[in-house]
Amino acid sequence: MALKLHGIPMSTCTTRVLTCLHEKGLDFELVPVNLFAGEHKQPPFLAKNPFGQIPVLEDGDLTLFESRAITAYLAEKYKETGCDLLRHNDLKEAALVKVWLEVESQHYHPAIYQIVYQFFVLPLQGKTADQAIIDVNLEKLGKVLDVYEARLGTTKCLAGDFYSLADLHHLSYTYYFMKTPWASLINSRPNVKTWWEDISSRPAFKKVAEGMTFGEK
Amino acid sequence: MALKLHGIPMSTCTTRVLTCLHEKGLDFELVPVNLFAGEHKQPPFLAKNPFGQIPVLEDGDLTLFESRAITAYLAEKYKETGCDLLRHNDLKEAALVKVWLEVESQHYHPAIYQIVYQFFVLPLQGKTADQAIIDVNLEKLGKVLDVYEARLGTTKCLAGDFYSLADLHHLSYTYYFMKTPWASLINSRPNVKTWWEDISSRPAFKKVAEGMTFGEK
Ligand SMILES: N[C@@H](CCC(=O)N[C@@H](CS)C(=O)NCC(=O)O)C(=O)O
Ligand SMILES: N[C@@H](CCC(=O)N[C@@H](CS)C(=O)NCC(=O)O)C(=O)O
Repeated sequence: MALKLHGIPMSTCTTRVLTCLHEKGLDFELVPVNLFAGEHKQPPFLAKNPFGQIPVLEDGDLTLFESRAITAYLAEKYKETGCDLLRHNDLKEAALVKVWLEVESQHYHPAIYQIVYQFFVLPLQGKTADQAIIDVNLEKLGKVLDVYEARLGTTKCLAGDFYSLADLHHLSYTYYFMKTPWASLINSRPNVKTWWEDISSRPAFKKVAEGMTFGEK
Repeated sequence: MALKLHGIPMSTCTTRVLTCLHEKGLDFELVPVNLFAGEHKQPPFLAKNPFGQIPVLEDGDLTLFESRAITAYLAEKYKETGCDLLRHNDLKEAALVKVWLEVESQHYHPAIYQIVYQFFVLPLQGKTADQAIIDVNLEKLGKVLDVYEARLGTTKCLAGDFYSLADLHHLSYTYYFMKTPWASLINSRPNVKTWWEDISSRPAFKKVAEGMTFGEK
């Protein structure tokens, strides 16, 4: 039975999973969820994800939610297929992938999420962005990127000289962030800039980015 | 060479790792870090964790940070020892552990962290807690716990009828949260209450809880 991904092509969390599916070269069906009609808050969808959010993956009778759990599942189940995103043959490399997955989740995401949310999402809902929130998070993100800049001066990617799930998890939000007025946070740090150009030009992500039209008129 | 954990026994993030070490019955050395003297922001420590935070684990020449990455590493490296925290022999169970690990990280932690931080940490620094921040996060936490209440009506623990790393990751913050005036958020939900009593009475955590004296006079 084919993998079924419930989500939409312009959602950051859906594209995190889509990119992983493409890196693995897996067949799947994308089942659109009508967020504007509130389909994700209705019982049939809540039965799949009680938090009422996309994405959701169905693999036979197994239903999974949380984008990072889904990518970790796919990367493990299909570890021998496509790009090895977890470095499963090397305990040390695999450990460093875990560290940088957590850095994305605990340091990078909380800051960049707020900026993208304020800049793109609120205006679409007819609300105004709160510049103070943006500013605080630009400062936080800058500090995280200082650590990245030093790290990426010693290794090509975050966990080592290899592309991994830790890098992949950065793609969706950074792609939208690069369309804000603050892209210089990335571009002014040479190692981060090279890394970003490198990971965002991978064919798997380029395919996904075509659908990332959020905030476009 | 023995495992070396840099941290302190009353820190939530350190105790997350300590609990895992005890569940696995592993030998380790706890190396205290003098946070009050700012040792974690000095070059020798920053060389271990560029974010200047505890805990850090050293396993021979491998240095890891981020508590959840460390527990995941230990749970995988020592999968045959002690409690099987990842359900590594069953792809479906392992997938559900991943889902609920992410729920803790993305839903539970952001809310409970703010409450514990406002209530315990700020007063120690001579600052006053911001009740508005506490209130917003109590509401968020309540919604997350509603999902837990339903889930724990069908399974004994979060990922299934087995204790896993997903449950373990909740222990440290919930333990301190239970000492705030809002413990009823847990106690008023019967399934959550039973689960909490169950997981917090495991010998591995009871040993760790003895050192969790933060906020005590
Ligand atoms: N931590 C979740 C977040 C999921 C999430 O925020 N999804 C958004 C779309 S990108 C959504 O469904 N928003 C609607 C809502 O939260 O009501 C994940 O990584 O999957
Ligand atoms: N996401 C990190 C958070 C680590 C953390 O916040 N550690 C605290 C102690 S519980 C710390 O070192 N605080 C000092 C600081 O951040 O300057 C983890 O899970 O390890």
